Amino acid sequence: MDIKTLAQQAKDAAITLAALDGSVKDKALAAIAEALLAHKETIFAANRQDLARSEKEGLAAPLMKRLKFDDKKLATVVAGIRDLAAMDDPVGVTQRATELDAGLALYRVSCPIGVIGVIFESRPDALVQISSLCLKSGNAVLLKGGSEAKETNRALYTLIKEASEAAGAPSGWIQLLETRQDVAEMLGLDEYIDLIIPRGSNAFVRHIMDHSNIPVMGHADGICHVYVDRGADIDMAVNIAVDAKTQYVAVCNAMETLLVHAGIAEKYLPRMKEAMEAAGVALVGCEKTRSIIDIPAAVDTDWDTEYLELKLSVKVVDDLEEAIKHINRHGSGHTDSIVTKDKNSAKRFLALVDSGNVFWNCSTRFSDGYVFGLGAEVGIATGKLHARGPVGMEGLLIYKYKLLGSGQTIRPYSAGEKRYTHQKIDGDCPV
Amino acid sequence: MDIKTLAQQAKDAAITLAALDGSVKDKALAAIAEALLAHKETIFAANRQDLARSEKEGLAAPLMKRLKFDDKKLATVVAGIRDLAAMDDPVGVTQRATELDAGLALYRVSCPIGVIGVIFESRPDALVQISSLCLKSGNAVLLKGGSEAKETNRALYTLIKEASEAAGAPSGWIQLLETRQDVAEMLGLDEYIDLIIPRGSNAFVRHIMDHSNIPVMGHADGICHVYVDRGADIDMAVNIAVDAKTQYVAVCNAMETLLVHAGIAEKYLPRMKEAMEAAGVALVGCEKTRSIIDIPAAVDTDWDTEYLELKLSVKVVDDLEEAIKHINRHGSGHTDSIVTKDKNSAKRFLALVDSGNVFWNCSTRFSDGYVFGLGAEVGIATGKLHARGPVGMEGLLIYKYKLLGSGQTIRPYSAGEKRYTHQKIDGDCPV
Repeated sequence: MDIKTLAQQAKDAAITLAALDGSVKDKALAAIAEALLAHKETIFAANRQDLARSEKEGLAAPLMKRLKFDDKKLATVVAGIRDLAAMDDPVGVTQRATELDAGLALYRVSCPIGVIGVIFESRPDALVQISSLCLKSGNAVLLKGGSEAKETNRALYTLIKEASEAAGAPSGWIQLLETRQDVAEMLGLDEYIDLIIPRGSNAFVRHIMDHSNIPVMGHADGICHVYVDRGADIDMAVNIAVDAKTQYVAVCNAMETLLVHAGIAEKYLPRMKEAMEAAGVALVGCEKTRSIIDIPAAVDTDWDTEYLELKLSVKVVDDLEEAIKHINRHGSGHTDSIVTKDKNSAKRFLALVDSGNVFWNCSTRFSDGYVFGLGAEVGIATGKLHARGPVGMEGLLIYKYKLLGSGQTIRPYSAGEKRYTHQKIDGDCPV
Repeated sequence: MDIKTLAQQAKDAAITLAALDGSVKDKALAAIAEALLAHKETIFAANRQDLARSEKEGLAAPLMKRLKFDDKKLATVVAGIRDLAAMDDPVGVTQRATELDAGLALYRVSCPIGVIGVIFESRPDALVQISSLCLKSGNAVLLKGGSEAKETNRALYTLIKEASEAAGAPSGWIQLLETRQDVAEMLGLDEYIDLIIPRGSNAFVRHIMDHSNIPVMGHADGICHVYVDRGADIDMAVNIAVDAKTQYVAVCNAMETLLVHAGIAEKYLPRMKEAMEAAGVALVGCEKTRSIIDIPAAVDTDWDTEYLELKLSVKVVDDLEEAIKHINRHGSGHTDSIVTKDKNSAKRFLALVDSGNVFWNCSTRFSDGYVFGLGAEVGIATGKLHARGPVGMEGLLIYKYKLLGSGQTIRPYSAGEKRYTHQKIDGDCPV
């Protein structure tokens, strides 16, 4: 079937899914959990095919580990599905209610966005997490996973589709795309698809953003900074920098550039260098940095580079203002942290740095939906509309206005014969 | 100066403006109100130039009326500015707070979006309303008004810029564009501009949406429906339809298509025809409609046309489901209303019609930010992200996460030595 037809089916299903009773969605989630457990050997067998093929193709060890779907990963995703099923329905929540006049009541009520296209990396467990989040939030979903995991993805998709539809989810609410050509076609289907969430490499996300009229939620780069202010505790600033750079280098919230106030650089930089080199980090720096510690020179492009490896660029700045300016110019709006004992500096940094996550005296590595307590994470968004920073299920929801009248026309209000009351109403929308 | 430079200046100003104390913004708003009153003769003289030129160019009477800026309009905009100045600062509001661990507190805090590009119609009062809304919400703004009003707009812009900057607003927060070429350049400046709000004709809005990578908030079409259900009160359904079609035909929330349940069509259609024809409405209809009332046949394109005049397409549907399907296929996600005594039909209609405003037993004409009690209206959005339906100041705001630590690194949490507490915190972010 062509992708346009799949997207049309998803759109039709989305309308029904938006109005589906919460208990039916929860029953469908429970059925999915049971089906995955009951047919785990089918999934594992498909996964063994993916592993064997990928091993033959020389897939790197960390990716092989992510690709593997075993009892432990199954238990995690099943627990996640059951957590979701136990949550209150996020759809149909009255967010605000206003009486416009006697017998004319306005309710702002949460609802799903509609049809979401999700493109995700090699982990097949992501397929289960994303589709169950979409089901709970009432969104239809088009999924495209990594090609390394194609057999596992197909097995998971089939089980989820069959179990959920048998339990009352509308036919076609979940669709699987399998090729890059499918994705390319999807990008043009703004008539049917409301939002694309790409998770993957920077170049890939940027490609998606540049090639679709459909809104995209996500982040291309993660160029995160730690700024060591003049008023920093030196030990704390070393610990935080080493953690932000080295605890997990391949993630978007790892630090790529360290900024150091000139007034503390002579004390801080040698200590930092020692600790970073002990952790295996290669340093490059600006001229001022190099006048204090002996490291290679950074080039202009270093300040705009997401290394994702044990490499760090270091720059000495004259003051807080220069640090803020550098971050707003070279950062990616993801996560930036200040280390300082000075509350005023912290306040100014948090207000003026234009990033979704602005931290004071802690590692950049904390920006994460699970860490933030948002439950399952949809992704981290660096855009400035709808949702920002780590995005949980809320990012898959929007609202509609329901106005309940008793025959009102606008004429008497326009003519000044009647006036709006604009009284707050307590209570939920009755329909 | 070229538009890129103006946009850069606005972006620089936006960073400062985002952190500006609420009292300074309010002082700047008060200064704007005073300046407009003190220099009203300058504004009126500029406006007379625009009126004289436009009259010579044969501008239509309703547009001449919109273009005129007199004492009455001045009083309205000044009252609006003073209302805004009296409101609480919408920036810096703690929306949610969570303790991640002892001494590690997460706050979600409201903040401006950044730089907004607004393109608006001939009314010069819109320039004042939009710029004061942007200032209160901490956003820098690039404004492009109708060319008919160019002298008035320049006078207003100059007074607003000088008065607000003298009162402490950052230099460059407000910028005036003057030509279509300026707008074309602006559409490419996604590096500096975060959101475009186009207000104007459908074709124009669609052009903007198709020619920019910058997110757009607004609506192209307003193809609104009234659906008369089998369970409708006939009198009410006639009144609502006539009001929705005729009270003001040139607006986006006027009805364009009337859907009628087959089970009530024989009773309803003749009554409706009589009332519509008395109001001067030209009707076209589907074959079933024409078997009951004698009107010209509708053609396929009628169902997708926003007439914005005294014309209405009428269609008989077999049931509620067909009405919902028709609206979701041909509507523009703007405003759709059901007339019925049947609560279950209403509930289903409100849930399944995928529009920002879904109404029961009232005219489509109520979808408006002022009517909804949102204060000044930014516009009506038919997109499904960020803001939907009538959008007030809230649509110009987003949030950032502030995480306040005391030296925390991620390592002990990743290693399982420490656990997140995820306790709700009462109180506002202290920085």
